Amino acid sequence: MADLQDLERLLGDRLVRDASVLAELSHDSSRVGPEGAPRAAVRATSTADVSAALAWAHEHDVPVSVRGAGTGLAGGANAYPGGLVVSLADMTEIVEIDAANRTATVQAGVITAQLDARAREAGLFFPPDPASARTSTIGGNIATNAGGLRCVAHGVTNDSVAALVVVLADGRVMRTGARTRKNVVGYDLTSLFVGSEGTLGVVTEATVRLKPIPPGTPRTFRASFDTLEAAGSAVTAIVNGDAQPEVLELMDALSVEIIESFQPSGLTVPAGAMLVGQTVGLDAAAKAESITATCRAQGATETEISDTDALLEARRLSNPALNARGLKIGCDVGVPVAALAEVFHGIAEISERHGKRVSTVAHAGDGNLHSTVEAPDDAAGIAAADAVIDDITKLAISLGGTISGEHGIGSVKQHELPWQLDEAALDVQRAIKLALDPRGILTPGRGI
Amino acid sequence: MADLQDLERLLGDRLVRDASVLAELSHDSSRVGPEGAPRAAVRATSTADVSAALAWAHEHDVPVSVRGAGTGLAGGANAYPGGLVVSLADMTEIVEIDAANRTATVQAGVITAQLDARAREAGLFFPPDPASARTSTIGGNIATNAGGLRCVAHGVTNDSVAALVVVLADGRVMRTGARTRKNVVGYDLTSLFVGSEGTLGVVTEATVRLKPIPPGTPRTFRASFDTLEAAGSAVTAIVNGDAQPEVLELMDALSVEIIESFQPSGLTVPAGAMLVGQTVGLDAAAKAESITATCRAQGATETEISDTDALLEARRLSNPALNARGLKIGCDVGVPVAALAEVFHGIAEISERHGKRVSTVAHAGDGNLHSTVEAPDDAAGIAAADAVIDDITKLAISLGGTISGEHGIGSVKQHELPWQLDEAALDVQRAIKLALDPRGILTPGRGI
Repeated sequence: MADLQDLERLLGDRLVRDASVLAELSHDSSRVGPEGAPRAAVRATSTADVSAALAWAHEHDVPVSVRGAGTGLAGGANAYPGGLVVSLADMTEIVEIDAANRTATVQAGVITAQLDARAREAGLFFPPDPASARTSTIGGNIATNAGGLRCVAHGVTNDSVAALVVVLADGRVMRTGARTRKNVVGYDLTSLFVGSEGTLGVVTEATVRLKPIPPGTPRTFRASFDTLEAAGSAVTAIVNGDAQPEVLELMDALSVEIIESFQPSGLTVPAGAMLVGQTVGLDAAAKAESITATCRAQGATETEISDTDALLEARRLSNPALNARGLKIGCDVGVPVAALAEVFHGIAEISERHGKRVSTVAHAGDGNLHSTVEAPDDAAGIAAADAVIDDITKLAISLGGTISGEHGIGSVKQHELPWQLDEAALDVQRAIKLALDPRGILTPGRGI
Repeated sequence: MADLQDLERLLGDRLVRDASVLAELSHDSSRVGPEGAPRAAVRATSTADVSAALAWAHEHDVPVSVRGAGTGLAGGANAYPGGLVVSLADMTEIVEIDAANRTATVQAGVITAQLDARAREAGLFFPPDPASARTSTIGGNIATNAGGLRCVAHGVTNDSVAALVVVLADGRVMRTGARTRKNVVGYDLTSLFVGSEGTLGVVTEATVRLKPIPPGTPRTFRASFDTLEAAGSAVTAIVNGDAQPEVLELMDALSVEIIESFQPSGLTVPAGAMLVGQTVGLDAAAKAESITATCRAQGATETEISDTDALLEARRLSNPALNARGLKIGCDVGVPVAALAEVFHGIAEISERHGKRVSTVAHAGDGNLHSTVEAPDDAAGIAAADAVIDDITKLAISLGGTISGEHGIGSVKQHELPWQLDEAALDVQRAIKLALDPRGILTPGRGI
């Protein structure tokens, strides 16, 4: 381990070998365990630290896992046997809020909600809003091109990233992008690295775009439906209507039941599904009225408009509530929004065919679904649950959809890649990986 | 030329060898001439035609130039000596308008304005609006990640592209992206190919995102300023204000003079500059009032609001008006929008220092400037004009800007690449190019 001492001399106590700390830094929030015990971790506080770590790993052919807050759901940040963990959680500096250009420059370890809070002090906000925003880091959001609740109005993380500082596999530092709104100078490396799941380089700093806080008081709304299909049709009608929501989420009956038993907020469990959402702007109330009217026209049995955030809070509890119940196997599929009723119909069929209860929450306005099956924690139980999720994923693909809307591929969805990508696309992905990380040290075997 | 006969057998009269046709297909709309006479051109009508053409070129190591309508301004579509021209101008099918999912699927040779017109029949529109929209093709727009007038509200072409069909350098066909709003499955190949200027593959078909036509009657507005700096400050104030324009363009005094002498529309030439723009939505009139009030607060000497399109038409005439005057050398720089007053101040200094008149039009809301110097068509005249444009470009970079907002690098801006990209970024660009086009047949020596 003389080699590691070289790195230790450079990094001091930012190089960690304590087994209990390493254990904490070895897994994300997925059901998949780490591939093995790492030899050390670097708790980087600067781009230079990350550069030193990767240069060392590159020289010694040591596999590297990269992590922010470890909230990932695809096993992407899990450690490798004998590998090096690079943690960005201590890179928490908000370098600049540039209000006149509506950008913020932050280190990768900044918690997303903290960036948003700082932007709000300047009358701006950070549009991406993953459900994990209060715990996940902007670096992790960028690595997975995270989505969240506000995507229906503002797009995904990539739509809000202007420029990056990236450490390449051999330790060299590269800047991508520009602070300008338009920039056509060579290939769009910013978009290439956003969503690359730590396989091409390590993002250490980002310049992101902010938007002005809409004037007026936001409204939240909910609508209950007797069937999931009716709720799906309502979503398609809302998305194609004049009144555009900022947030449009769906919880099926089982999800509402699970959330209410985890932390009761007085929500009545619907027969089929509940839509919840938010409107913003000076006409927020009128838009909420218009959307709930659309819901009633599509068969909603009950609707409500509120000026509190309680309905969205319930939706945000979905993941904690599910986690509290033990092992679950889920998906992150997407479908074109006009296919929502059809995908819900198909999920009900799959549930019945497998004899397994499926709970589904959805970023409905985006057509992004998280269906979950609870599984006994044994091989047979997991295999049975996996079979349900595989069928739902194949259904989404057959409707023109995607195997991952916002969580990424990680190690969990490797086997699904050929379901969506053709052979030429897989070859191109591999060629890019090989070109930028020829020794294969960065998050090997995951992502693409 | 036996080899070419193989391709001719496959393509019939879609393989063109007529010298006068080849001459027409050998140059774009830049001042840069073709590098040489091509041996043949393929007027493709299908992805299979393009695949056959590239497979042949790959096998025989023949350089390929790719073109749509030839409206490019960076020399990117110019022919190579002994090369093959692949023209997509005959791939004009609008495959599908999917109103419920707000997407359109089109072949690469569809004229952008025709796509927009078809979308409007379904109550939708195609957001990107390059000044050349009535003549340029969607494939060319994608190859350069084109910008245009509506970017301030809707972003650049890449923001409206969901999925592509791409023919790779060796002739294989690849699909990228998905029709869903969110998709994190491997690297974002769609964004990589958008703006890649024909150097990584040939886009033959695209699925693009449409938006609903805003309700109400649009308003156009103009505001005249005594100085360019004051107009620049007004733009920064407007972009950071509550009333957001759909279009926000700037023409300096010389530009207005040139446009009026080309096709008079009664515009009074301002002392410094004129802003023109458009607002949309039910509150279009109120927003136009608010924006012109902001202009007056920033020193506008005269403002006007109209419900006709005449002001924008004048702006669209800028390029034809300049072209009618003979050789011009221009730039396509971008700056962060808060730096507009400063960049205009600097351009005035550069103009004075070089003793050359500079005319500037700008997609002001994006901070994207087209400054132009007229040049006598001889080596000394061109060199003197180039020196002015180089200084303006370096100024933009020094303000955190970009060497190209929307036209791309082509062959014209090759020497400027290191001004913006660091050595690591250039290496990564080259590594990607080498990985996807190892024989270097696709638009060699241009773009990156």
